[in-house]
Amino acid sequence: MTVEQINSQGNLRHLITLADLERHQIERIIDRASSYLTPLGHPPPRDSILKGHTVANLFFEASTRTRASFELAAKRLSADVLNLDVNMSARTKGESLLDTIYTLQAMQVDIFVVRDASTGVPVRIAKHVAPHVSVLNAGESDVSHPTQGLLDLMTVQRHKGDVGKLCIAIVGDIKHSRVARSAFEAFTKFDVGEIRFVGPVELLPEDDMTGARSFTELDDGIRDADVVMSLRIQKERFGELGEIPDPQEYFRRYGLTEDRLRVAKPDAIVMHPGPMNRGVEIEGSLADGPRSVIQEQVTNGLAVRMSVLALVYEHISANRGSPR
Amino acid sequence: MTVEQINSQGNLRHLITLADLERHQIERIIDRASSYLTPLGHPPPRDSILKGHTVANLFFEASTRTRASFELAAKRLSADVLNLDVNMSARTKGESLLDTIYTLQAMQVDIFVVRDASTGVPVRIAKHVAPHVSVLNAGESDVSHPTQGLLDLMTVQRHKGDVGKLCIAIVGDIKHSRVARSAFEAFTKFDVGEIRFVGPVELLPEDDMTGARSFTELDDGIRDADVVMSLRIQKERFGELGEIPDPQEYFRRYGLTEDRLRVAKPDAIVMHPGPMNRGVEIEGSLADGPRSVIQEQVTNGLAVRMSVLALVYEHISANRGSPR
Amino acid sequence: MTVEQINSQGNLRHLITLADLERHQIERIIDRASSYLTPLGHPPPRDSILKGHTVANLFFEASTRTRASFELAAKRLSADVLNLDVNMSARTKGESLLDTIYTLQAMQVDIFVVRDASTGVPVRIAKHVAPHVSVLNAGESDVSHPTQGLLDLMTVQRHKGDVGKLCIAIVGDIKHSRVARSAFEAFTKFDVGEIRFVGPVELLPEDDMTGARSFTELDDGIRDADVVMSLRIQKERFGELGEIPDPQEYFRRYGLTEDRLRVAKPDAIVMHPGPMNRGVEIEGSLADGPRSVIQEQVTNGLAVRMSVLALVYEHISANRGSPR
Repeated sequence: MTVEQINSQGNLRHLITLADLERHQIERIIDRASSYLTPLGHPPPRDSILKGHTVANLFFEASTRTRASFELAAKRLSADVLNLDVNMSARTKGESLLDTIYTLQAMQVDIFVVRDASTGVPVRIAKHVAPHVSVLNAGESDVSHPTQGLLDLMTVQRHKGDVGKLCIAIVGDIKHSRVARSAFEAFTKFDVGEIRFVGPVELLPEDDMTGARSFTELDDGIRDADVVMSLRIQKERFGELGEIPDPQEYFRRYGLTEDRLRVAKPDAIVMHPGPMNRGVEIEGSLADGPRSVIQEQVTNGLAVRMSVLALVYEHISANRGSPR
Repeated sequence: MTVEQINSQGNLRHLITLADLERHQIERIIDRASSYLTPLGHPPPRDSILKGHTVANLFFEASTRTRASFELAAKRLSADVLNLDVNMSARTKGESLLDTIYTLQAMQVDIFVVRDASTGVPVRIAKHVAPHVSVLNAGESDVSHPTQGLLDLMTVQRHKGDVGKLCIAIVGDIKHSRVARSAFEAFTKFDVGEIRFVGPVELLPEDDMTGARSFTELDDGIRDADVVMSLRIQKERFGELGEIPDPQEYFRRYGLTEDRLRVAKPDAIVMHPGPMNRGVEIEGSLADGPRSVIQEQVTNGLAVRMSVLALVYEHISANRGSPR
Repeated sequence: MTVEQINSQGNLRHLITLADLERHQIERIIDRASSYLTPLGHPPPRDSILKGHTVANLFFEASTRTRASFELAAKRLSADVLNLDVNMSARTKGESLLDTIYTLQAMQVDIFVVRDASTGVPVRIAKHVAPHVSVLNAGESDVSHPTQGLLDLMTVQRHKGDVGKLCIAIVGDIKHSRVARSAFEAFTKFDVGEIRFVGPVELLPEDDMTGARSFTELDDGIRDADVVMSLRIQKERFGELGEIPDPQEYFRRYGLTEDRLRVAKPDAIVMHPGPMNRGVEIEGSLADGPRSVIQEQVTNGLAVRMSVLALVYEHISANRGSPR
């Protein structure tokens, strides 16, 4: 990571990874996000802070949910929003990614929200934009999904307060999950009591997320947990898993159910980043039941995206017209 | 139909079918729609009633015209609009339809505009949304297209006044037409003088639309009619029609022309829901001529959609924050 | 061309080609465009002139950049914007183009921005719309791209002042380029000193652009030029070019580089309409270097589109409600 996410005034400029943010900077994002929550059913929060500014959603990887969340976040802050679903081949992208960015920047786009299936694109863009322009990572390969990590932290904090004594179990395909990685970064930043990764051995990460304990048995992994987060499993994985040839066997071994959750804390909450495979990684009734905070995650996610968009405004307005 | 479209205060909440609406409820929609008409060429009507509210256009079936009509209707009421063209396979949809809805609802979407090629999706959604949320049917299989039925009724009323003494002939593929069905429901609700279905025997409906008379000869069917509505015929049908192997023969038998319209009333108007196959179900010069009210249907359609969006606002604002 | 682009009051109504505009009319567009420039990094210009009006971007040919430019131009003028990416086959388009236009017009669309890969579509639409409605050409086959020609002229004027003594070299596939054609029309209108076309003989135009000199050697063509404009070459062309079988050979013969540019004027500027094939028609470091005005072209392009949209407003508002 060779791009400064925080500018010299201490304000957020880019959001590409949680790995090198300070705790107080994350707290600032979540505090602002909390100010953008209204009770469900009430009119959504609005702010005119981005009026006259332009946000480009540059999605190289298809997404309905995250794109909708960023689009509504920007519109509720009164920005002009440009949706660009760009289908570039890898080769084409190498050639023309920066030209696309320079072109949009010359159209006075102020904020790029970028999603891409490969690694390094958000950093590459951030290194080349004008001094006042911001880049927000909306999902990068299996490496980083920082607004997801923030919304997961925010959701846990709102239910459990300080995470310092909590045990958080993340169940499923940890190895290929940008969600798990960003959640890990967010929770460790706040000195979480314990993080556990639970899943088939083939899907546990190699030892780059230090401090987490790994489990291959669900019962062991979620025992006495305060928070159990289930991850989406891609159907393509089943070919690679020796003992788990199909979704049915996966559900038998790692599917979260009311019954299996009995070994967790009585007040354990259940999370999932969506979209869910019901009956594969999670039982439908559990997802819809009182322990589930899955819809709150979505609501908090929109608030986090509003917060980040609003916070980078301070950088943009202070650095307009700076020499390159 | 097991969803209440009208709430306990008597206000419109959902619009899924015209079949169980009362006449006065339809009148209320059309009255409000009339208030959203400006002379063609004048600036379009605007209203800020949905400012701060979010409308999601959830189209599982492609549509340019109806999507554009709902999108402009929502924007002219100052709503934030989210367009989602969702390409779900039938199996995927079964699994994830409600999760998509719950997710968008957690993003504080207030109104879902839904179009789908299969039957039952709008009702299924309406049964599961939060108490303040509305669902509007923008076209459902061959079953229902209520805003189309309303715009057809409105267009006839504006030209002919009370429909109680009118003879209305609907020509074409009645059997597979949600347009015909919703028009039938609208006109019968207002005690239309006579409704006739005209088309090849294979395309006439089985006897579930009681009160309508069926004709297989065009001249008999439109004789002395006040209103002649032509329907779009799908090219795929020709394989199924014994005596009509191609568009040319269909035009010879059922194509509306100035000449054949001479048996109708001298002041008969000509309607078509669009998009037209000119030279198949209708002669181009007739569609563009003085009898045609086809473009008025489009304008009235946008007004009807503004009306429905504005009317459900009353439900939304009165029921925000209700317990589920 | 049988459509009047200027109305009887002398105001711009349509913009389909630069060929029959007067010099003062072009000056008026560029003057207004200049008023829509703000320093890069500053908030973009805004104007509420199109508030309550509707602009439809009707793109029959895919485009990211031009669509984004027109979309932001319309939004920054406060218009409601409808994006329609229409994938019509040639046959379908023949049948239903005008019905699509009539339908959108009945929804009170005021301005159609049209892009199409075939010739004649913008004129055909302009001939059939209501008296107050405007049609803007956003790229038409290899024939016309008027806002591109205007932005090229504007960019040269801002760097070099009066074009009357300038030598402008356009390098590449002139024959198939709507960009070259519209630039030629713009510059000749302003009595440019000299226009040169430079490229392989197969890509030089037949003699319909009189006044331009043709060159097959790059050094000859750009010698002492004040402005060198490189055009995008489509990969498909290489099969048709006898002596130039591949991009490498093309770059060797016609690729613009710092080194080869030494024969041009010392203060020559370099232009490209984008998207660039770096390393094929232009060296990357030249495109990014101090001679390049490529990003200014993009910024000026957005200002030109705002200008044109704002100028046709005068026609629209003066002609609302006119009889057809």
